[in-house]
Amino acid sequence: MSRILAGVVCLVFVGAGSAADAKDDVRKVLDDQVAAWNKGDVEGYMKGYWQSDELTFYSGGTATKGWKATLERYKKNYTAAGKKMGTLAFADVEVTPISDTHAVVLGKWKLTGLDEPAEGLFTLIVKKLPEGWRVVHDHTSKK
Amino acid sequence: MSRILAGVVCLVFVGAGSAADAKDDVRKVLDDQVAAWNKGDVEGYMKGYWQSDELTFYSGGTATKGWKATLERYKKNYTAAGKKMGTLAFADVEVTPISDTHAVVLGKWKLTGLDEPAEGLFTLIVKKLPEGWRVVHDHTSKK
Repeated sequence: MSRILAGVVCLVFVGAGSAADAKDDVRKVLDDQVAAWNKGDVEGYMKGYWQSDELTFYSGGTATKGWKATLERYKKNYTAAGKKMGTLAFADVEVTPISDTHAVVLGKWKLTGLDEPAEGLFTLIVKKLPEGWRVVHDHTSKK
Repeated sequence: MSRILAGVVCLVFVGAGSAADAKDDVRKVLDDQVAAWNKGDVEGYMKGYWQSDELTFYSGGTATKGWKATLERYKKNYTAAGKKMGTLAFADVEVTPISDTHAVVLGKWKLTGLDEPAEGLFTLIVKKLPEGWRVVHDHTSKK
Protein backbone atom coordinates (compact mmCIF):
# COMPACT_ATOMS: atom_id res chain seq x y z
CA MET A 1 0.00 0.00 0.00
CA SER A 2 2.65 2.51 1.01
CA ARG A 3 4.59 1.66 -2.12
CA ILE A 4 1.50 2.31 -4.26
CA LEU A 5 0.88 5.53 -2.34
CA ALA A 6 4.49 6.60 -2.92
CA GLY A 7 4.03 5.86 -6.61
CA VAL A 8 0.89 7.98 -6.77
CA VAL A 9 2.60 10.79 -4.88
CA CYS A 10 5.53 10.60 -7.33
CA LEU A 11 3.17 10.76 -10.30
CA VAL A 12 1.40 13.77 -8.84
CA PHE A 13 4.74 15.52 -8.34
CA VAL A 14 5.94 14.59 -11.82
CA GLY A 15 2.65 15.87 -13.24
CA ALA A 16 2.80 19.12 -11.30
CA GLY A 17 6.47 19.46 -12.25
CA SER A 18 5.73 19.18 -15.97
CA ALA A 19 3.03 21.86 -15.87
CA ALA A 20 5.33 24.20 -13.93
CA ASP A 21 8.20 23.39 -16.32
CA ALA A 22 5.94 24.06 -19.29
CA LYS A 23 5.00 27.47 -17.87
CA ASP A 24 8.66 28.33 -17.26
CA ASP A 25 9.69 27.11 -20.71
CA VAL A 26 6.93 29.09 -22.43
CA ARG A 27 7.75 32.17 -20.38
CA LYS A 28 11.41 31.85 -21.39
CA VAL A 29 10.44 31.81 -25.09
CA LEU A 30 8.48 35.06 -24.59
CA ASP A 31 11.27 36.67 -22.56
CA ASP A 32 13.75 35.77 -25.31
CA GLN A 33 11.42 37.36 -27.87
CA VAL A 34 11.23 40.59 -25.87
CA ALA A 35 15.02 40.64 -25.40
CA ALA A 36 15.58 40.11 -29.15
CA TRP A 37 13.06 42.83 -30.04
CA ASN A 38 14.74 45.29 -27.72
CA LYS A 39 18.11 44.62 -29.40
CA GLY A 40 16.46 45.49 -32.74
CA ASP A 41 16.70 41.83 -33.79
CA VAL A 42 13.43 41.02 -35.60
CA GLU A 43 14.67 37.65 -36.82
CA GLY A 44 15.63 36.73 -33.24
CA TYR A 45 12.15 37.80 -32.12
CA MET A 46 10.66 35.59 -34.84
CA LYS A 47 12.42 32.52 -33.36
CA GLY A 48 9.55 32.28 -30.87
CA TYR A 49 7.14 31.55 -33.72
CA TRP A 50 6.53 28.18 -35.38
CA GLN A 51 8.64 28.27 -38.54
CA SER A 52 5.85 26.92 -40.71
CA ASP A 53 3.47 27.96 -43.46
CA GLU A 54 0.72 27.00 -40.99
CA LEU A 55 1.56 29.74 -38.47
CA THR A 56 -1.38 32.15 -38.14
CA PHE A 57 -0.98 35.76 -37.03
CA TYR A 58 -4.07 37.91 -36.44
CA SER A 59 -3.54 41.61 -35.90
CA GLY A 60 -6.56 43.91 -35.76
CA GLY A 61 -8.56 42.85 -38.81
CA THR A 62 -5.67 41.35 -40.76
CA ALA A 63 -4.90 37.63 -40.87
CA THR A 64 -1.36 36.71 -41.93
CA LYS A 65 -0.52 33.10 -42.73
CA GLY A 66 2.93 31.56 -42.50
CA TRP A 67 6.20 32.39 -40.76
CA LYS A 68 7.76 34.20 -43.73
CA ALA A 69 4.72 36.41 -44.31
CA THR A 70 4.66 37.23 -40.58
CA LEU A 71 8.37 38.17 -40.66
CA GLU A 72 7.75 40.37 -43.72
CA ARG A 73 4.84 42.04 -41.93
CA TYR A 74 7.04 42.85 -38.93
CA LYS A 75 9.81 44.15 -41.20
CA LYS A 76 7.36 46.33 -43.15
CA ASN A 77 5.83 47.80 -39.97
CA TYR A 78 8.94 48.16 -37.80
CA THR A 79 12.25 48.01 -39.68
CA ALA A 80 11.43 49.59 -43.06
CA ALA A 81 12.74 53.09 -43.84
CA GLY A 82 11.29 55.64 -41.42
CA LYS A 83 10.02 52.94 -39.02
CA LYS A 84 11.13 52.27 -35.46
CA MET A 85 10.94 49.10 -33.39
CA GLY A 86 10.67 50.89 -30.06
CA THR A 87 10.92 49.07 -26.75
CA LEU A 88 8.63 46.11 -26.14
CA ALA A 89 7.31 45.01 -22.76
CA PHE A 90 4.78 42.36 -21.80
CA ALA A 91 2.67 42.55 -18.64
CA ASP A 92 0.12 40.39 -16.82
CA VAL A 93 1.28 37.31 -18.72
CA GLU A 94 -0.69 34.18 -17.85
CA VAL A 95 0.41 30.83 -19.23
CA THR A 96 -2.28 28.13 -18.98
CA PRO A 97 -1.21 24.64 -20.05
CA ILE A 98 -4.17 22.79 -21.53
CA SER A 99 -2.46 19.55 -22.52
CA ASP A 100 1.08 18.14 -22.53
CA THR A 101 1.66 19.82 -25.89
CA HIS A 102 -0.43 22.99 -25.85
CA ALA A 103 -0.82 26.09 -23.73
CA VAL A 104 -2.71 29.36 -24.01
CA VAL A 105 -0.93 32.59 -23.14
CA LEU A 106 -2.83 35.79 -22.38
CA GLY A 107 -1.19 39.13 -21.74
CA LYS A 108 -0.70 42.79 -22.43
CA TRP A 109 1.92 44.31 -24.73
CA LYS A 110 3.30 47.82 -24.85
CA LEU A 111 5.64 49.51 -27.28
CA THR A 112 7.32 52.70 -26.12
CA GLY A 113 9.91 54.89 -27.82
CA LEU A 114 7.78 55.21 -30.96
CA ASP A 115 6.30 58.49 -32.20
CA GLU A 116 3.16 57.39 -30.38
CA PRO A 117 3.29 54.63 -27.77
CA ALA A 118 1.12 51.65 -28.63
CA GLU A 119 -0.38 49.05 -26.37
CA GLY A 120 -2.91 46.28 -26.36
CA LEU A 121 -3.65 42.63 -25.66
CA PHE A 122 -2.47 39.31 -27.00
CA THR A 123 -3.70 35.73 -27.04
CA LEU A 124 -1.16 33.08 -28.03
CA ILE A 125 -1.56 29.38 -28.71
CA VAL A 126 1.80 27.76 -28.03
CA LYS A 127 2.72 24.21 -28.94
CA LYS A 128 5.54 21.96 -27.77
CA LEU A 129 7.47 21.00 -30.90
CA PRO A 130 10.73 19.03 -31.28
CA GLU A 131 12.57 22.41 -31.36
CA GLY A 132 10.80 23.61 -28.18
CA TRP A 133 7.65 25.60 -27.35
CA ARG A 134 6.64 27.84 -30.23
CA VAL A 135 3.78 30.25 -30.90
CA VAL A 136 1.53 28.58 -33.49
CA HIS A 137 -1.17 31.27 -33.40
CA ASP A 138 -0.96 34.91 -32.31
CA HIS A 139 -3.95 37.23 -32.00
CA THR A 140 -2.89 40.72 -31.10
CA SER A 141 -4.98 43.85 -30.84
CA LYS A 142 -4.46 47.50 -30.05
CA LYS A 143 -6.08 50.02 -27.77
CA MET B 1 -2.72 -10.29 -34.13
CA SER B 2 -5.81 -9.54 -36.20
CA ARG B 3 -7.76 -8.94 -33.01
CA ILE B 4 -5.16 -6.41 -31.85
CA LEU B 5 -5.22 -4.82 -35.29
CA ALA B 6 -9.03 -4.60 -35.17
CA GLY B 7 -8.74 -3.01 -31.74
CA VAL B 8 -6.27 -0.44 -33.01
CA VAL B 9 -8.46 0.28 -36.05
CA CYS B 10 -11.47 0.72 -33.72
CA LEU B 11 -9.53 3.10 -31.50
CA VAL B 12 -8.44 5.13 -34.51
CA PHE B 13 -12.06 5.35 -35.68
CA VAL B 14 -13.33 6.23 -32.21
CA GLY B 15 -10.58 8.87 -31.94
CA ALA B 16 -11.38 10.33 -35.36
CA GLY B 17 -15.09 10.22 -34.54
CA SER B 18 -14.66 12.20 -31.33
CA ALA B 19 -12.62 14.91 -33.04
CA ALA B 20 -15.24 15.21 -35.81
CA ASP B 21 -18.03 15.23 -33.20
CA ALA B 22 -16.21 17.90 -31.21
CA LYS B 23 -15.90 20.07 -34.32
CA ASP B 24 -19.61 19.65 -35.09
CA ASP B 25 -20.60 20.33 -31.48
CA VAL B 26 -18.47 23.47 -31.29
CA ARG B 27 -19.75 24.65 -34.65
CA LYS B 28 -23.34 24.19 -33.40
CA VAL B 29 -22.64 26.39 -30.36
CA LEU B 30 -21.37 29.16 -32.67
CA ASP B 31 -24.30 28.74 -35.09
CA ASP B 32 -26.71 28.99 -32.15
CA GLN B 33 -24.95 32.18 -31.02
CA VAL B 34 -25.31 33.74 -34.46
CA ALA B 35 -29.00 32.72 -34.65
CA ALA B 36 -29.68 34.22 -31.20
CA TRP B 37 -27.85 37.46 -32.09
CA ASN B 38 -29.85 37.81 -35.28
CA LYS B 39 -33.09 37.48 -33.31
CA GLY B 40 -31.93 40.35 -31.08
CA ASP B 41 -31.44 37.91 -28.19
CA VAL B 42 -28.19 38.96 -26.44
CA GLU B 43 -28.77 36.63 -23.50
CA GLY B 44 -29.28 33.72 -25.93
CA TYR B 45 -26.04 34.71 -27.65
CA MET B 46 -24.30 34.71 -24.26
CA LYS B 47 -25.27 31.05 -23.71
CA GLY B 48 -22.26 30.12 -25.84
CA TYR B 49 -19.95 31.57 -23.20
CA TRP B 50 -18.74 29.89 -20.02
CA GLN B 51 -21.02 31.25 -17.29
CA SER B 52 -18.16 31.93 -14.92
CA ASP B 53 -16.23 34.78 -13.34
CA GLU B 54 -13.20 33.22 -15.05
CA LEU B 55 -14.43 33.90 -18.59
CA THR B 56 -12.04 36.27 -20.38
CA PHE B 57 -13.11 38.52 -23.24
CA TYR B 58 -10.51 40.58 -25.11
CA SER B 59 -11.76 43.18 -27.56
CA GLY B 60 -9.29 45.62 -29.11
CA GLY B 61 -7.31 46.84 -26.12
CA THR B 62 -9.94 46.07 -23.48
CA ALA B 63 -9.93 42.95 -21.30
CA THR B 64 -13.26 42.04 -19.70
CA LYS B 65 -13.36 39.39 -17.00
CA GLY B 66 -16.42 37.29 -16.15
CA TRP B 67 -19.65 36.30 -17.86
CA LYS B 68 -21.74 39.07 -16.28
CA ALA B 69 -19.29 41.83 -17.18
CA THR B 70 -19.16 40.47 -20.75
CA LEU B 71 -22.96 40.48 -20.97
CA GLU B 72 -23.03 44.08 -19.66
CA ARG B 73 -20.43 45.08 -22.25
CA TYR B 74 -22.55 43.62 -25.05
CA LYS B 75 -25.68 45.33 -23.71
CA LYS B 76 -23.87 48.68 -23.44
CA ASN B 77 -22.51 48.45 -26.99
CA TYR B 78 -25.47 46.89 -28.79
CA THR B 79 -28.78 47.10 -26.94
CA ALA B 80 -28.55 50.40 -25.02
CA ALA B 81 -30.63 53.37 -26.22
CA GLY B 82 -29.60 54.41 -29.73
CA LYS B 83 -27.61 51.20 -30.34
CA LYS B 84 -28.30 48.47 -32.88
CA MET B 85 -27.32 44.81 -32.87
CA GLY B 86 -27.24 44.49 -36.66
CA THR B 87 -26.86 41.16 -38.40
CA LEU B 88 -23.96 38.91 -37.42
CA ALA B 89 -22.20 36.45 -39.72
CA PHE B 90 -19.12 34.32 -39.21
CA ALA B 91 -16.89 33.18 -42.09
CA ASP B 92 -13.83 30.98 -42.59
CA VAL B 93 -14.44 29.29 -39.24
CA GLU B 94 -11.79 26.69 -38.37
CA VAL B 95 -12.23 24.50 -35.29
CA THR B 96 -9.01 22.76 -34.20
CA PRO B 97 -9.36 20.33 -31.29
CA ILE B 98 -6.15 20.41 -29.23
CA SER B 99 -7.16 17.94 -26.53
CA ASP B 100 -10.26 15.94 -25.59
CA THR B 101 -11.57 18.95 -23.69
CA HIS B 102 -10.25 21.98 -25.56
CA ALA B 103 -10.36 23.41 -29.06
CA VAL B 104 -9.20 26.60 -30.73
CA VAL B 105 -11.57 28.36 -33.11
CA LEU B 106 -10.36 30.92 -35.62
CA GLY B 107 -12.62 32.93 -37.89
CA LYS B 108 -13.91 36.17 -39.28
CA TRP B 109 -16.95 38.11 -38.02
CA LYS B 110 -19.02 40.70 -39.77
CA LEU B 111 -21.83 42.93 -38.53
CA THR B 112 -24.05 44.51 -41.14
CA GLY B 113 -27.17 46.66 -40.77
CA LEU B 114 -25.35 49.08 -38.44
CA ASP B 115 -24.70 52.72 -39.30
CA GLU B 116 -21.28 51.53 -40.40
CA PRO B 117 -20.66 47.84 -41.05
CA ALA B 118 -17.96 46.36 -38.82
CA GLU B 119 -15.80 43.32 -39.38
CA GLY B 120 -12.76 41.61 -38.02
CA LEU B 121 -11.22 38.43 -36.66
CA PHE B 122 -11.76 36.22 -33.65
CA THR B 123 -9.80 33.62 -31.74
CA LEU B 124 -11.79 31.48 -29.30
CA ILE B 125 -10.67 28.93 -26.75
CA VAL B 126 -13.56 26.53 -26.22
CA LYS B 127 -13.78 23.95 -23.45
CA LYS B 128 -15.95 20.89 -23.02
CA LEU B 129 -17.86 21.43 -19.77
CA PRO B 130 -20.66 19.36 -18.18
CA GLU B 131 -23.17 21.75 -19.84
CA GLY B 132 -21.49 21.36 -23.26
CA TRP B 133 -18.78 23.17 -25.24
CA ARG B 134 -18.44 26.77 -24.11
CA VAL B 135 -16.20 29.70 -25.05
CA VAL B 136 -13.83 30.24 -22.12
CA HIS B 137 -11.74 32.94 -23.84
CA ASP B 138 -12.65 35.25 -26.71
CA HIS B 139 -10.22 37.59 -28.43
CA THR B 140 -11.91 39.69 -31.04
CA SER B 141 -10.50 42.54 -33.11
CA LYS B 142 -11.75 44.95 -35.72
CA LYS B 143 -10.54 46.09 -39.12
